[in-house]
Amino acid sequence: MPHRLDARQPGFEAQFAEFLTGKREAQQDVNDAVVAIIAEVRNRGDAALIDYTRRFDRMELRADQIRLAGTAIDDAAAQCPTDVRDALHFAAERIESYHRKLMPSDIDYRDASGAQLGARWRPVASVGLYVPGGAAAYPSSVLMNAVPARVAGVKRLAMVVPTPGGTLNPAVMAAAQIAGVTEIYRVGGAQAVAALAYGTATIAAVDKIVGPGNAYVAAAKRLVFGQVGIDMIAGPSEILVVADGANDPAWIAMDLLSQAEHDEAAQAILITNDEGFAAQVERAVEAELSRSPRAAIARASWAAHGAIILVQRLDDAVALVDRIAPEHLELAVAEPEPLSQRIQNTGAIFLGRYAPEAVGDYVAGPNHVLPTARSARFSSGLGVHDFLKRTSLVRCDAESLARLGPAAIRLARAEGLEAHARAIAIRLNLP
Amino acid sequence: MPHRLDARQPGFEAQFAEFLTGKREAQQDVNDAVVAIIAEVRNRGDAALIDYTRRFDRMELRADQIRLAGTAIDDAAAQCPTDVRDALHFAAERIESYHRKLMPSDIDYRDASGAQLGARWRPVASVGLYVPGGAAAYPSSVLMNAVPARVAGVKRLAMVVPTPGGTLNPAVMAAAQIAGVTEIYRVGGAQAVAALAYGTATIAAVDKIVGPGNAYVAAAKRLVFGQVGIDMIAGPSEILVVADGANDPAWIAMDLLSQAEHDEAAQAILITNDEGFAAQVERAVEAELSRSPRAAIARASWAAHGAIILVQRLDDAVALVDRIAPEHLELAVAEPEPLSQRIQNTGAIFLGRYAPEAVGDYVAGPNHVLPTARSARFSSGLGVHDFLKRTSLVRCDAESLARLGPAAIRLARAEGLEAHARAIAIRLNLP
Repeated sequence: MPHRLDARQPGFEAQFAEFLTGKREAQQDVNDAVVAIIAEVRNRGDAALIDYTRRFDRMELRADQIRLAGTAIDDAAAQCPTDVRDALHFAAERIESYHRKLMPSDIDYRDASGAQLGARWRPVASVGLYVPGGAAAYPSSVLMNAVPARVAGVKRLAMVVPTPGGTLNPAVMAAAQIAGVTEIYRVGGAQAVAALAYGTATIAAVDKIVGPGNAYVAAAKRLVFGQVGIDMIAGPSEILVVADGANDPAWIAMDLLSQAEHDEAAQAILITNDEGFAAQVERAVEAELSRSPRAAIARASWAAHGAIILVQRLDDAVALVDRIAPEHLELAVAEPEPLSQRIQNTGAIFLGRYAPEAVGDYVAGPNHVLPTARSARFSSGLGVHDFLKRTSLVRCDAESLARLGPAAIRLARAEGLEAHARAIAIRLNLP
Repeated sequence: MPHRLDARQPGFEAQFAEFLTGKREAQQDVNDAVVAIIAEVRNRGDAALIDYTRRFDRMELRADQIRLAGTAIDDAAAQCPTDVRDALHFAAERIESYHRKLMPSDIDYRDASGAQLGARWRPVASVGLYVPGGAAAYPSSVLMNAVPARVAGVKRLAMVVPTPGGTLNPAVMAAAQIAGVTEIYRVGGAQAVAALAYGTATIAAVDKIVGPGNAYVAAAKRLVFGQVGIDMIAGPSEILVVADGANDPAWIAMDLLSQAEHDEAAQAILITNDEGFAAQVERAVEAELSRSPRAAIARASWAAHGAIILVQRLDDAVALVDRIAPEHLELAVAEPEPLSQRIQNTGAIFLGRYAPEAVGDYVAGPNHVLPTARSARFSSGLGVHDFLKRTSLVRCDAESLARLGPAAIRLARAEGLEAHARAIAIRLNLP
């Protein structure tokens, strides 16, 4: 049974505050194991990768098999059904088109002082893309990570993917092909992250590592951060649906279940101003669960973390949304725009009755890697900015330095940094 | 004596690789102490802040004195010398003007499918700004952190600053006034970070914490990350000067020393193609050191971490610069533009003989909070983006969903996520 909260009742604030701080994920403490794995890979390189792959992925690799041969990629990708390949192409083109529009512009101008100022964006030179194997092998995630990197201009994209028992996932290989990824290593886990961060004889070190993974992969990313850049550490998925009573309850039930089926720790929340509609959605969820192939997962998620929140007016949802800061927000109402304008904290908004969140997971164009666990208050979904860095530019001549220098000298001396002051003063013949 | 490397000699690559991996900072392990401090502040709130302030800052606070009164801020700021206040105003205006030009634009468009797609940037609602007390109390850092936050539109900026023995720094208070920061708490250390992250009766929790601090502050920021956002953890400062033989050696020596005087762990590197000039710079450094008020620090930094690297041609510097990925890069050459264009990895470039790095620390306009320790390979200086987050927008109607939906359904089923497929199919009357 999902949580039930009613903003029209006294005591709601305390209930809601408690609901907000509820943790959904058991913290698995794998830190010590991961520290050891990273040290092994740094010390023994490919040999450590081969040992861990034998142990964790039950397969024997030679060093010259760590990198997948182009023919092996092609052969596996060829087994991807044509309609899936076509859909991946369709998705890749839309993701590329959307992310191109997010590319920032360089700036370069001369200001009144005569100083020439600028900022320029450059791609990260090399990026490692972690792709999970087994059950969570999602070709859509390959596109969502690799395509923005390509759009940003990343020259080298190295993919690591565990292939337990030696099996390649045809759709993942097809997605890599479509995204132009040709450098693929069949290793996974913390050992693959360590190899990308520090390099081995076979795998050259990268500058940044992105992509989802299990607790070992997440711990490894945290530990190598600094040596390389990393993307966010994504938590379990979330949806918040704000719906009026005019929706088809079955549609909204499917949207809630499309998050709940991800993971027992996933969270689906409905906010509505219509108590009768809420009850209908709840019945529809039960009905759908009875025929869902992933019912066990979805039912566990819905029972433990699901919630139905009743509000007096839909406008009252705005403040709650911003406090929940959901990864995904659906506004299934007649006029979603004015409501949308008032929302500050969410990774993505789906507007209207015909914009189910699932369309955004695959083909809408925006990224499906989005901030979870309330981090939409301060962070953004994956995008081209994650694959770029900005350098500032300052050019002065004698005249512009003469205009800027005296104030800088005063501040340097106020901070007790005399060499800073002198570096300017010496050029201006000032004391 | 600084490191000496010569790219024209055999053995250089091994020497340079070793130089690159040299660590400059002793890792101070304060993690356990900081975990305890955070737990205390979460449990006991203001009472814990009062206890830690008594212990670490040697002063007795009442709960109603944790927040500085407006009159106390004004009184302290009034003691800031007029010429310093004027210089802070001058700097703040230039920082604001530069950062305004970096503001990203929202996007909003309808594509060929009829779907309406967008991305909009919104300010982080509340930001905590850590300002060190004592020796490292830099008013310029207050401006460099607070002004971009204001430009981004952050509504609430809460500053924490330790005031050991009760003393307020007039220039820091003046900088806060100029940046429009009126919410100031006289607490510091890990306890201040914990208060900003989790809130106390006096200090409301924020969404993100920025600003420099000592090892305790840095450890606290790492530990509260997730609960709130944080900026980068800055390491010791660095400069790399690429200079031809036509520079005044004393100018370049001052630039090297202006980094070296920051901190014994700071690093100053000269790359030149003129061996005689390199020797002149080294002599000039010695001469300047003999009259520098911070000679002990600068000498220790220069001896332990300083370096002079000789190259055959200045063009050979480009690859070395990108591997060092310095926080600050000076191109003190006749034609800096073509060289600048080829550089990929650095936080900031200062072009020409009249652009000493120190001018960028204070008044040029770009931010002085920049990536250190080779992280310019994958990250950027502080800017408006650090105070913004992006939400993606997808609006579909029945027609556009009909165009996008079938591909999404195929991919969802290929990934075994039936509820995802059904959330779309149910709206299109598809199986």
